[in-house]
Amino acid sequence: MSVLPKALEDLIEQLSKLSGVGPRTAERYALGILKRSSNDAKELAKTLEELHSSLKTCPKTFALIDSSEDISSLYTDPIRSKQLVAVVEDPIDIVSLEKTGQFKGTYHVLGGVISPIDGIGPEQLHLNELIKRIKDDKVDELILAINASVEGESTALYLQDMLKQAKVEVKITRLARGLPVGIDLEYADQITLKHALSGRTEL
Amino acid sequence: MSVLPKALEDLIEQLSKLSGVGPRTAERYALGILKRSSNDAKELAKTLEELHSSLKTCPKTFALIDSSEDISSLYTDPIRSKQLVAVVEDPIDIVSLEKTGQFKGTYHVLGGVISPIDGIGPEQLHLNELIKRIKDDKVDELILAINASVEGESTALYLQDMLKQAKVEVKITRLARGLPVGIDLEYADQITLKHALSGRTEL
Repeated sequence: MSVLPKALEDLIEQLSKLSGVGPRTAERYALGILKRSSNDAKELAKTLEELHSSLKTCPKTFALIDSSEDISSLYTDPIRSKQLVAVVEDPIDIVSLEKTGQFKGTYHVLGGVISPIDGIGPEQLHLNELIKRIKDDKVDELILAINASVEGESTALYLQDMLKQAKVEVKITRLARGLPVGIDLEYADQITLKHALSGRTEL
Repeated sequence: MSVLPKALEDLIEQLSKLSGVGPRTAERYALGILKRSSNDAKELAKTLEELHSSLKTCPKTFALIDSSEDISSLYTDPIRSKQLVAVVEDPIDIVSLEKTGQFKGTYHVLGGVISPIDGIGPEQLHLNELIKRIKDDKVDELILAINASVEGESTALYLQDMLKQAKVEVKITRLARGLPVGIDLEYADQITLKHALSGRTEL
């Protein structure tokens, strides 16, 4: 005999799959959702139902875009410089950088960093597309806005090597060491990110 | 121009409505959901969509039950004593008490505690139904398993007074002061709850 109705137990189980959410927190979230109106729950359900189908990856920058769009508006925007490209790991990193209001270039999402332990090799990242972009758009500067982790470092070195071998000349910079090592870009506060953007150093 | 696609921003906004979830955490949850398969998101959507319609409140104990049930199985179970009733604030408190495995009585959910600041008066709680149940089921003992807060205290006193005025004779006990004051029942660990159950004191 279960103590809670199945619907509620299912919800708790599914919520506890979210990263960092244990069974207690999931219980609290589930009860919170239950206490709010049924419309709120239905609205959230609708958003989740349509989430994957209403999003796609920009074929140019690999940022997340509406499935109705062709190319990320952050790329097509005429104000933004296509000759200045910030290379980020994840689409959410774009949000963090945009919040600083200091970057007027375009973005390129790698889709991760090289991490053999997680089975991510260079071939899974959007590196070839980046090199093509550097040639096509005559990119002047590449800002490596990737996390200051061991994997981020090796990805940066790999990319530098790859560009040398492809005989592509481009200035490569990386975010200033204002970023505390070990902290994900996603969690960095805006001021730290501002410092890191303006104090970027040549690789 | 928004940085993130609308579907993702909607999801982040809706997730940040969960209690204790800020915009950063909501972003992390949303990306986590996005990274998992579309089926997982659809499954969660389905659970949320049906949540309110597949649950109802037991008319006898006010616990949450499947909408297909008539009365909570915790009440109808012949092994459980209807003469011993644990009075709890919220349906989730039943889960905590059941986990101790020490309680063989039935439950009555008040639906909150008296709290004028939140606009909750005695008339919003299932107090009259409790008095009716005490008479109908010839309840011997009422265990007040409500939070050890100021509101919980005043609710206990109010209930005691109400029973005296209604000339209903019933032994009223409350959970032992093993519960640290200020900690919600929902968060108490099982051992503390076991001590609190076995060491209950007469009011």
